[in-house]
Amino acid sequence: MNDTLKVILNRRSVRAYSGRPVTREEKDQILAATLRAPTAGNLMLYSIIEVEDQKLKDRLAVTCDNQPFIARAPYVLLFLADYQRWMDYFQICGVSSKAADLGVPERKPGTGDLLLACCDALIAAQTAVIAAESMGIGSCYIGDILERYEIHRELFDLPPFTLPITMLCFGYPASTAKRLTTRYDKEMIVHSNRYKRLDKSGLEKGFAALENDFRAGHRAHDYANAGQATYFRKFASDFAVELNRSVSEMINNWE
Amino acid sequence: MNDTLKVILNRRSVRAYSGRPVTREEKDQILAATLRAPTAGNLMLYSIIEVEDQKLKDRLAVTCDNQPFIARAPYVLLFLADYQRWMDYFQICGVSSKAADLGVPERKPGTGDLLLACCDALIAAQTAVIAAESMGIGSCYIGDILERYEIHRELFDLPPFTLPITMLCFGYPASTAKRLTTRYDKEMIVHSNRYKRLDKSGLEKGFAALENDFRAGHRAHDYANAGQATYFRKFASDFAVELNRSVSEMINNWE
Repeated sequence: MNDTLKVILNRRSVRAYSGRPVTREEKDQILAATLRAPTAGNLMLYSIIEVEDQKLKDRLAVTCDNQPFIARAPYVLLFLADYQRWMDYFQICGVSSKAADLGVPERKPGTGDLLLACCDALIAAQTAVIAAESMGIGSCYIGDILERYEIHRELFDLPPFTLPITMLCFGYPASTAKRLTTRYDKEMIVHSNRYKRLDKSGLEKGFAALENDFRAGHRAHDYANAGQATYFRKFASDFAVELNRSVSEMINNWE
Repeated sequence: MNDTLKVILNRRSVRAYSGRPVTREEKDQILAATLRAPTAGNLMLYSIIEVEDQKLKDRLAVTCDNQPFIARAPYVLLFLADYQRWMDYFQICGVSSKAADLGVPERKPGTGDLLLACCDALIAAQTAVIAAESMGIGSCYIGDILERYEIHRELFDLPPFTLPITMLCFGYPASTAKRLTTRYDKEMIVHSNRYKRLDKSGLEKGFAALENDFRAGHRAHDYANAGQATYFRKFASDFAVELNRSVSEMINNWE
């Protein structure tokens, strides 16, 4: 097995960092690798904000569902879906008058452009994760950056055709002891030629390990099963409700 | 520089494949690496459809903006944002009656859940790309899978809470001669602490290489500059209009 596969197969999220800083040279290596990520039509429909200001990190540790480790992360990158740069360039290139000459209506980015820009940003983010991991630098995704849109928009001066799609914390791990998180079986995730919707017995088989963990847990008595626990603790939690409110606002703002 | 960084820095999209097949063992190695990709709350909010049926590939070569190389790709993976599996599991776990007992309304996945599931799917996709690349297997993203939603939904039996967010073609490259595509400068993509919106001179500097390529191109006389050419050939093209119509329909369908 090659080194890259080993890096991928042994990665886990790192939320506790050693005192070792991430140097400017290492940051630049991560960024150089990231900027080679595939991008739709070579348009690079994303931006990256390096969050180095401690005050910003402190604020993010609160706004991203109260996760204090964000403030302690040696390196933080915010990934934006970004059509603003192109819209600004189109404007100075005189597309308005050219469209008028051609007798066609101008268009603005829609939700399709938004999703395509999200693709670019996320492909870049995962490239950063694997690059960093290969250098011994751990990482953790902060999906909670999708919450509190209005606050983050102001905090980072985000113009209309940008959307904060994900954030990454990087740092050397405090501990080298790694236990990998279990994943669901391939049979549940990978389908052959068509989507195979699982029936009751398929779902019960696929989620059996989750149910076992749930029954061994100390809060098992709150809910009848792991499905209920996941629904109420995650899917219907306050942060999930906020996530959906915030993203609706982002999409409205984009449109 | 380590091997993983070399893999990332030297990758380019591969659309022409040699006769060498991708073996079942190699496919399984790619999938095993992919399934280790980070995922929000360890929920694995995605599915992967292995497209092995030649009739499906032939159809995709047409529906994804007429790209015949898709039909010739030795290995094709379709990535879905997927909340259906969890919704089905919640249902058999009796969340409806539990919600009624607790006196709280039930919720369905919203656009926030949709974007979070897209994050999971795309992070997995780029993990597959880097894993394959490390094995000498090239790849190409097919963003056009976002078009023609109704056709793809029927072709792959997609249930309501799934969304085809991206597709990947894999294969050994026909040629080993690689010239990397140029990327925009780091100064244009990476911001420090806040979004820095470029002014006219910043945009002109950032897009100078694109303008030079445009002026050297044989179709330069159709438009006054590269911004106009990009706008009319890409951003306002028929496929871009279809992309946005299709994604609007996906989002409506999800909601």
